[in-house]
Amino acid sequence: MQTLCVAGGRVVHPDGSVTTADVLADQDRGEIVDVGPDLTAEADRVLDAAGAVVMPGLVNAHTHAAMTLLRGYADDKPLETWLREDIWPAEATLEPADVRAGTDLALLEMIRSGTTAFGDMYFHEGEVVEGVAEAGLRARVGHGIVTVGKDTETAHDDVDESLDVAREYDGAADGRVRTAVMPHSLTTVSRAAFERCVETARDAGVPLHLHANETRDEVDPIVDDHGTDPLRYADSLGVLTPETFLAHGVHVSDAEIELLADRESSVVHCPASNMKLASGMAPVQEYLDAGVNVALGTDGAASNNDLDLFDEMRDAAMLGKLAADRADAVAAPDVVRMATAGGADALGLPGGRIAPGEAADLAVVDLDAPHLTPVHDVVSHLVYAARGSDVRHTVCDGQVLMRDRTVLTMDEERVKAEARERAAAVAERAD
Amino acid sequence: MQTLCVAGGRVVHPDGSVTTADVLADQDRGEIVDVGPDLTAEADRVLDAAGAVVMPGLVNAHTHAAMTLLRGYADDKPLETWLREDIWPAEATLEPADVRAGTDLALLEMIRSGTTAFGDMYFHEGEVVEGVAEAGLRARVGHGIVTVGKDTETAHDDVDESLDVAREYDGAADGRVRTAVMPHSLTTVSRAAFERCVETARDAGVPLHLHANETRDEVDPIVDDHGTDPLRYADSLGVLTPETFLAHGVHVSDAEIELLADRESSVVHCPASNMKLASGMAPVQEYLDAGVNVALGTDGAASNNDLDLFDEMRDAAMLGKLAADRADAVAAPDVVRMATAGGADALGLPGGRIAPGEAADLAVVDLDAPHLTPVHDVVSHLVYAARGSDVRHTVCDGQVLMRDRTVLTMDEERVKAEARERAAAVAERAD
Repeated sequence: MQTLCVAGGRVVHPDGSVTTADVLADQDRGEIVDVGPDLTAEADRVLDAAGAVVMPGLVNAHTHAAMTLLRGYADDKPLETWLREDIWPAEATLEPADVRAGTDLALLEMIRSGTTAFGDMYFHEGEVVEGVAEAGLRARVGHGIVTVGKDTETAHDDVDESLDVAREYDGAADGRVRTAVMPHSLTTVSRAAFERCVETARDAGVPLHLHANETRDEVDPIVDDHGTDPLRYADSLGVLTPETFLAHGVHVSDAEIELLADRESSVVHCPASNMKLASGMAPVQEYLDAGVNVALGTDGAASNNDLDLFDEMRDAAMLGKLAADRADAVAAPDVVRMATAGGADALGLPGGRIAPGEAADLAVVDLDAPHLTPVHDVVSHLVYAARGSDVRHTVCDGQVLMRDRTVLTMDEERVKAEARERAAAVAERAD
Repeated sequence: MQTLCVAGGRVVHPDGSVTTADVLADQDRGEIVDVGPDLTAEADRVLDAAGAVVMPGLVNAHTHAAMTLLRGYADDKPLETWLREDIWPAEATLEPADVRAGTDLALLEMIRSGTTAFGDMYFHEGEVVEGVAEAGLRARVGHGIVTVGKDTETAHDDVDESLDVAREYDGAADGRVRTAVMPHSLTTVSRAAFERCVETARDAGVPLHLHANETRDEVDPIVDDHGTDPLRYADSLGVLTPETFLAHGVHVSDAEIELLADRESSVVHCPASNMKLASGMAPVQEYLDAGVNVALGTDGAASNNDLDLFDEMRDAAMLGKLAADRADAVAAPDVVRMATAGGADALGLPGGRIAPGEAADLAVVDLDAPHLTPVHDVVSHLVYAARGSDVRHTVCDGQVLMRDRTVLTMDEERVKAEARERAAAVAERAD
């Protein structure tokens, strides 16, 4: 076997403790084989982690990767206006090559900021799969289904597309790509279409992913139409299983939190998007107290406006305290867990823990910068002070995707140039 | 005169518009003399800003700089416990050389992230002044007064110290250092001491700076003790003048907002600290609507945990939307203004605007990174996507403090090493 040793860093263990250790990975299997002292002698390759933290690769469990093309395209508008006047018209012009260019830019940004796995809901997902295969990350991808406002046939085709994507690409990129059926939300997909989604996801053995309880405005119509709150309606459709992961979960009742805990479904918390769109504050400490698995997501770049999980960790810790009205809520160790193991578990992907037998997905974070000096507490620094630009190396599936801040699997200048060109063309077409 | 030209960047003008232009500065007077095309031929020195944004140097209008030594020392605790068990015991051990080391680390971090002016409330302020003089920034500094829980003589000495600092250092560092009298807050300083502060500040011609309306818990005792809300009590003491700047202003009534607008006092909004300590959400859009000048501050590094104004801009824009329950509130152009002109005006220092006759205080921000690609809107990027680490050059008072990410006025490795050593000693003494 070919081996890689990430050497001399302060390793964040699954229990949150931190010790100086080497991490030895089998590159052929993409797995960690040992964590401990003095493992460099056994290794074919060594990555220097001296003066740095070695943490599990970060997991961005809910995004729309190609929306990087619309980063800063429209901001500071009410959600409905922003969607109807800016985002949807621009998205309507996107061709497969645009989605590829935007996704490549997202992959580049994620590798640079230590993210090794993500959940993607968008369209032209074949382009996303090709990008992921080349860049070397892991992803759970799906075609987002919207049926409201469409005639029966078009709506049916949209569900078919999601089912086709889920079947065609599951296991692609040497198993690094997995799929899900992704009905957009409980208000934008009809009951009949949801029932098809649930049945086919179960038959294909893939999870469901949807937006749920994001804004107050989407909760009331469900109560009006279905006579119960959104997650009980979802449960009545068979949506809530341990494989299902829901994005947002901002406006939920105590009963809905209990239901999620009972069904073992995961919630992907998107604090930046929830602030920027004035959606509200998710009750994250209450989810944690109830035993619900919580992951973190950036949402699309148009509502964030970056894909930096370090920003998202900081936002989650801070907003969680405000939501709970308690400065001891949503503590740093919980946030690191959400951004790593919580994300991997939500997506049903390997990774998220540094231990023998786990996937060799790692982010190595420099501690040398002034804003990370002094170091009283490594875990606090990861959440409250570090930024994506502090990441020195990124490793996924045992392969080095970035070494000493140079991305090895992508041509950075080409990716940026292509994204600039395509973004300008999209803006022109949508104008 | 010696001249410096910052050449070829996209310049953010005082009205928020952005054009490609050169900025020519008289280095002897520290002033901008021209903004327009083709100014490099006239310049003695040129700083390359091609592919970058040239914005006014950022202003951190409320911090406790030396608290960088306590970055990550204690987190995720209720405010009272955090102060009584961790922060105050550690601060009680700080010697002048500790304050100097912590301040130097703060100055280094601020230069690296494009901040050129700050407001500092702490103690051993002579050390802060020396640090600022050498590092080349601007500052409004003051000794923080606390009188509650002290005997009359000790309390009197604390006020004397603040008045001495205000008189001794005003105009230091070739005028880059100005001072203020800084009673800590309306609940921690007695009425008699406040009256002395107001009188002496007026006699010395320096402003007042205090914490106000930060937490709900500090509002009620004032209503109980003085029969009116905090800012009307402050006004009855003569505290609210156009020179006064208040930190936080989270829990304020509509009447208090109107009062601030009438008195033309400034508010320094500290969104990260207000989230991390679960203090609450300041009504920033309401301040703006009422015509109150709003600045931004990081507060101390122990409650943030960095001094990056780009983080603070993002937090201000996002939290402002949540507080107003409107995604169009606290828009990006307003936030850039708060972080620049708003801060300079609050502190009563030059800077904050790029125009002839204004101080040559500038931050040059690279736009080349993946997370800043594509560029649909420069001002949106500064608020929602840029980080301190994107700053390429920092200029203050016409002098280049950082060129191509190398800080010229400080020995970065020495500053970090000294801070690490002193922080470890403080932690050991406080244990």
